[in-house]
Amino acid sequence: MYCGVDIGGTHTQIGAVDASGKVFDHEKLNTASFTQARDLVLTIAYTILRMAKVSGQKVEGIGVGCPNVNPRTGVLRNAANLKFKEEISLKDELAQYFPGIPVAVDNDANAAAVGERIYGKARNTDDFLCVTLGTGVGGGVFCNGKLVYGLNGMAGEIGHMIVEPNGRPCGCGRKGCLERYASAGGILDNYLEICTQNNATPQAATYRQVAEAAKTGDPLALLAFDKAARILGHALANIACVTAPTHIFVFGGVAQVGEILLAPLRKYFAENLLFCYKKTAEESPAVCIELSELMETLKDAAILGAAALARL
Amino acid sequence: MYCGVDIGGTHTQIGAVDASGKVFDHEKLNTASFTQARDLVLTIAYTILRMAKVSGQKVEGIGVGCPNVNPRTGVLRNAANLKFKEEISLKDELAQYFPGIPVAVDNDANAAAVGERIYGKARNTDDFLCVTLGTGVGGGVFCNGKLVYGLNGMAGEIGHMIVEPNGRPCGCGRKGCLERYASAGGILDNYLEICTQNNATPQAATYRQVAEAAKTGDPLALLAFDKAARILGHALANIACVTAPTHIFVFGGVAQVGEILLAPLRKYFAENLLFCYKKTAEESPAVCIELSELMETLKDAAILGAAALARL
Repeated sequence: MYCGVDIGGTHTQIGAVDASGKVFDHEKLNTASFTQARDLVLTIAYTILRMAKVSGQKVEGIGVGCPNVNPRTGVLRNAANLKFKEEISLKDELAQYFPGIPVAVDNDANAAAVGERIYGKARNTDDFLCVTLGTGVGGGVFCNGKLVYGLNGMAGEIGHMIVEPNGRPCGCGRKGCLERYASAGGILDNYLEICTQNNATPQAATYRQVAEAAKTGDPLALLAFDKAARILGHALANIACVTAPTHIFVFGGVAQVGEILLAPLRKYFAENLLFCYKKTAEESPAVCIELSELMETLKDAAILGAAALARL
Repeated sequence: MYCGVDIGGTHTQIGAVDASGKVFDHEKLNTASFTQARDLVLTIAYTILRMAKVSGQKVEGIGVGCPNVNPRTGVLRNAANLKFKEEISLKDELAQYFPGIPVAVDNDANAAAVGERIYGKARNTDDFLCVTLGTGVGGGVFCNGKLVYGLNGMAGEIGHMIVEPNGRPCGCGRKGCLERYASAGGILDNYLEICTQNNATPQAATYRQVAEAAKTGDPLALLAFDKAARILGHALANIACVTAPTHIFVFGGVAQVGEILLAPLRKYFAENLLFCYKKTAEESPAVCIELSELMETLKDAAILGAAALARL
């Protein structure tokens, strides 16, 4: 069996994946309850050992997706959305419990992109972007059929493109980052701001409640997603000018609202897109924005993405 | 001999390059005087044949750098800064005059990046960006040691990132593109705008005059470059979040002002750069912004860049 571990700002998911790509065991931890990264790693190791014992299967490889790790070294440093701020090698810490077993560590957005490449819609494209919308906003960039790492392995940190000069303060210490408008927390802030602008009493206090309200057609909640789509669509059109992806796949908890976000996102993306990325005839974008196949049709997408890292 | 052809919005340069990388013959055409791309190609072919005849050397390969060509097909289409709007295969049109001789066509920004990779400072880095500042603003993107082409071969069109919503109209049909602020014409517009804001009578009517005024310390001309640097520095910091280059090389006619542009560019870039692209200790960027070596120490940089295409 392969194990996929997805460390998110809110939850950490651990899954055991069989040879056919099915997740046959699954555990969820509360990331925020760990103040030391070492304690989280110990609990992950314990959980994997337990899964191996219960199933009677040998662990063949472990892949870990986590925000702000350096995939070249496996070191976690200053993750904006994680509580623990110490510098730690997730790869080395975890590997000590599993001698002789390959451990691959990459950020969650790269894990999603690798998962899409191996199991999903990106099997036939060499140039694509996978956008992860959740507690933060991340990106996995493939060019010429290879994952782009860049300086310190930190390519794809698209959530920290500055999209609103002097905008909302961000956990990274700067202002106006994309993820302050298009992450779960960003969309909640959009909603509260729109309520204030409209002299309306907010009917939602969490992202999940805003998403539920949008599904029932609440106009202020829909505007909160529209604002996220407008800012994200502009940023994605600018990214198209850099790497010219043929496909953009949207992934993560926020993407679960589907067309509530995707429909306006496609509209604003097309409005901001340079003509040479459009089909000549109808001026519609040649760049497709689609929901990740991992999310759409496969359960446990984050776990599969992480497990795919160990098979790359 | 190899021939390098650089088709710019203003001039077309044609050069014959010997085995040691020296340009031993050189011709300059006025691009704007050609209304049909076919006529320009015919004149280029005639010039190369004349250079071969005069030198008595065999043409081994021809590389052409030109805005808005598709490097995968060699087709020129809708170049924002060229007069001719017909769709034409520069590669096929030129190749017909040189049977059996390889003809490589790419955009001018990619040619500069390939030239930097082969002859310049990028020999030892796999992840870099070459920014071309001239009549327009272009980019050549290398990731994992390979030039990024992307959809329709149109990666690196960074001059058309929208940096000012509802900003200055651009030749591409949209508003607020980076090149309307950081190209030669963009910097002239910055200058005229700053003169108006300061109730000053403009002392310069061309980009060249603004550059000359800045060299003599004219504060309004320096502010025009400062504005270009501020907008470009922000855009480059956002690009760093996508591909995380280790180096950014600045190339083209506007880059000839050197530190007048580069000093404020480095300052604004550092101000907008995410912490993970900085050195831990002193918070200075780990991403270097440098003048292209092709420009700094080698003459005929654009010709060498184009010729390098034929040797890639």
